[in-house]
Amino acid sequence: MEAKLNALKARLLEVNDLGSANAVLGWDQATYMPPGGAEARARQMSTLARLTHEKFTDAAVGHLLDDLRPYADSLPADSDDAALIRVTWRDYQRFVRVPSDFVAETANHTGLTYDVWTRARPANDFESVRPLLEKTLDLSRRFSGFFPGYEHLADPHIDLSDEGMKASTVRALFGELRNALVPLVQAITSQPPVDNSAVLQRYPEAEQLAFGLSVIRDYGYDFERGRQDKTHHPFMTKFSLGDVRITTRVQENDLTDALFSTLHEAGHAMYEQGIRRDYEGTPLADGTSAGVHESQSRLWENIVGRSRPFWEHYFPKLQAAFPQQLGDVSLETFYRAINKVQRSLIRTDADEVTYNLHVMLRFDLELDLLDGKLEMRHLPDAWHDRYRSDLGITAPDDRDGVLQDVHWYGGTIGGAFQGDTLGNILSAQFYDAATQAHPAIKDEIGQGKFDTLHGWLRENVYQHGRKYTASELVERTTGGPMRIEPYIAYLRMKYGELYNV
Amino acid sequence: MEAKLNALKARLLEVNDLGSANAVLGWDQATYMPPGGAEARARQMSTLARLTHEKFTDAAVGHLLDDLRPYADSLPADSDDAALIRVTWRDYQRFVRVPSDFVAETANHTGLTYDVWTRARPANDFESVRPLLEKTLDLSRRFSGFFPGYEHLADPHIDLSDEGMKASTVRALFGELRNALVPLVQAITSQPPVDNSAVLQRYPEAEQLAFGLSVIRDYGYDFERGRQDKTHHPFMTKFSLGDVRITTRVQENDLTDALFSTLHEAGHAMYEQGIRRDYEGTPLADGTSAGVHESQSRLWENIVGRSRPFWEHYFPKLQAAFPQQLGDVSLETFYRAINKVQRSLIRTDADEVTYNLHVMLRFDLELDLLDGKLEMRHLPDAWHDRYRSDLGITAPDDRDGVLQDVHWYGGTIGGAFQGDTLGNILSAQFYDAATQAHPAIKDEIGQGKFDTLHGWLRENVYQHGRKYTASELVERTTGGPMRIEPYIAYLRMKYGELYNV
Repeated sequence: MEAKLNALKARLLEVNDLGSANAVLGWDQATYMPPGGAEARARQMSTLARLTHEKFTDAAVGHLLDDLRPYADSLPADSDDAALIRVTWRDYQRFVRVPSDFVAETANHTGLTYDVWTRARPANDFESVRPLLEKTLDLSRRFSGFFPGYEHLADPHIDLSDEGMKASTVRALFGELRNALVPLVQAITSQPPVDNSAVLQRYPEAEQLAFGLSVIRDYGYDFERGRQDKTHHPFMTKFSLGDVRITTRVQENDLTDALFSTLHEAGHAMYEQGIRRDYEGTPLADGTSAGVHESQSRLWENIVGRSRPFWEHYFPKLQAAFPQQLGDVSLETFYRAINKVQRSLIRTDADEVTYNLHVMLRFDLELDLLDGKLEMRHLPDAWHDRYRSDLGITAPDDRDGVLQDVHWYGGTIGGAFQGDTLGNILSAQFYDAATQAHPAIKDEIGQGKFDTLHGWLRENVYQHGRKYTASELVERTTGGPMRIEPYIAYLRMKYGELYNV
Repeated sequence: MEAKLNALKARLLEVNDLGSANAVLGWDQATYMPPGGAEARARQMSTLARLTHEKFTDAAVGHLLDDLRPYADSLPADSDDAALIRVTWRDYQRFVRVPSDFVAETANHTGLTYDVWTRARPANDFESVRPLLEKTLDLSRRFSGFFPGYEHLADPHIDLSDEGMKASTVRALFGELRNALVPLVQAITSQPPVDNSAVLQRYPEAEQLAFGLSVIRDYGYDFERGRQDKTHHPFMTKFSLGDVRITTRVQENDLTDALFSTLHEAGHAMYEQGIRRDYEGTPLADGTSAGVHESQSRLWENIVGRSRPFWEHYFPKLQAAFPQQLGDVSLETFYRAINKVQRSLIRTDADEVTYNLHVMLRFDLELDLLDGKLEMRHLPDAWHDRYRSDLGITAPDDRDGVLQDVHWYGGTIGGAFQGDTLGNILSAQFYDAATQAHPAIKDEIGQGKFDTLHGWLRENVYQHGRKYTASELVERTTGGPMRIEPYIAYLRMKYGELYNV
């Protein structure tokens, strides 16, 4: 069995190398590639995606897994090898249904679509990318077709990023959350608006980037195994456990965009950097679900990075970096500015309270597109309509409407957004568990120290990679299933205090 | 036959995509990769190299080529398809002899060696990289072993970069060149030394880079299809005909390093950017030999970029960029400074007259290493000895000795350097042919105009890619075989005037 396990690991390493190479191509496409490279790059990424898929779904892998599964069952429940065989088998069952040509076609198409989107958004030109997005929708439906038996066309997509979830469970959860959020949003937004002009002054790019990097260095993001570059849309990407990179974008007239996206992506990256090194090159060396991944980005961005103790420590440093802009601004004014709750247009810049409304409407639109209730040519208007009804505000154009998020333009339609809200819910649940285990964490944050929190997360979440599913991990770590109560309690406590509601 | 040709092209495109992906990984390794990524990156590049090789040397490719060769012979002599089949068949015959595992081992080894070299050079620590270089030598010998019948172990390596050449022909040519150069070097260096302190002042990095980019924009380097980044050692790399990048390094206490390496790499890049777009994704879409490639880098760096008319146009612009450093410097002083002939230590910074002495000694050392006359542990001393005997000067350390060039540390030993001198020879021969066809070229250079020269080179050299071998191309373009006379005449004319010799 050891020989077969080693044969499996060798093949998985090759698959991993091809996938990682493709990630490098994607990073370069988003960071430094000149315009002339776009067409060939889409093709190259398609070729690598097809080869990766072919290598992984090869019948030889299936035979190895068939032979190894009884062996996995004979191993102790907590065995890494057993987890590797189990996780690989689940992936195999999923990917073997999808033809390699389809994978290549999708990769090539999304590469070209991403390229068009990078120009369509600044030009406010949805029509230029619409025909491509029509094909994305078609590909997304065809993908679901490989998994007959789903309740909703979105289910195979959702299951791919948040294993075990489906449209109906997400909808139920979102309904429950909406019931709690809507009154809170109404109570807050009936208050006089907070003055956040302090963060909307001119902040030079270089100093913005330097400050963000100084914070995530304190967080424990390892620059020996990572770096930050600029892109249209911030993201985290991994080429190996020794090379986990983040990107950001900078608005010189808004301090918050680059700063909080940096804290956000660093949260994703610390998760990946914290995975056990001996999982390198295997399917275990990844975050376990979109929701758990997002719980880490949102935890470091919001629960830590938008908290009062955090800024008690960092605001003097920020004032020192921007004396002209912030020298006369009080901590309280700044703290209120970065936590201003408002009905706004851009998801990534949204406050914690309204954020989930942005996610939920995207989720609903995805479902409507997939099941044909919404035609693509009506998507921009449907977007505006939902913003009007859910947030009481409408974008003046599609740039800040349907063109704002990269997800559909660089991937598939379906499963792209629910992880964001699952992540918010889990972020509070994990943070509660961490502070119950180590009450000192809250004081440490006020001193710019994050070792205990980061250590607890590494020990309980990061190191395991995909060894446990999201629900197994939540159970192990918090003693129960996913619950929205800690998240609701967190929001009510924080924003109740801020807004006296 | 058309179906078979299309099948061949489809396979070649896949091979090309994999090779291009590997080039992206190599570029990233040299530009932005954090240190923690090195180990996995070497493995990833090795995996891609092996797959590329497997895909290309697959028996199916051989069968297609066997079927297509008679068809190629039936096509007109100048047919692109015939050239494609011919060139691919030659590559196939060569690569099919080399096992894929060997390719993977070499790629992994050179990736790790490059990483160690980047630290060994600044630390002046040859010993840290020596064991790796021993293995490089072993791999280089084993490579030659796949091509029995060679006269010298270096021949298969030389043939790989400069098809049709071998150690004995290069040696004969170099002997002839040395006989012409040594008296010239002696005559010049017996003159009082030129004062080049003007270029050795402090020049801030950003302004250096901006000036270099402005010149190559005038040359016609296409930034829509390329970009420049910084690396330890300057290079050009191509990911597609739409994405041809260059790199440079900057010394703030020497204006010439970044500037002339930028002109040099732009020459390489314009060659690749000028290849016919319909060759994209085939073996034809490459420079035809190391020598012809280097002829373009040296032509744009030296024959154009170090010429008096060039600086009559650009020196006022350079003075405007660096008024404090150059405001009081005369054109003549500057022109002499950048053409100062001296017995120096660094090949890439060497003047045109002594440059080839740097190349020749490396070529000899490669041959001695390969045939065992020189042991690796004695290489640093052998290096110093040859500099003493050939150039009358010795580096104080290995950093500016045997560690100075990346070639052996990022590739194989053998065939790495002869192309540099072949390129010098050909640069003058091509330039002569261009100016005979268009005498106005010389005047245009004095006006900062390069369209006629660039156009002639694109028409006669660049567009053809590998359609013609180096010797076919030289014959077509200059009406005869490679000759050293134009190059010697160029050096005697230019440096005779400069030094009154």
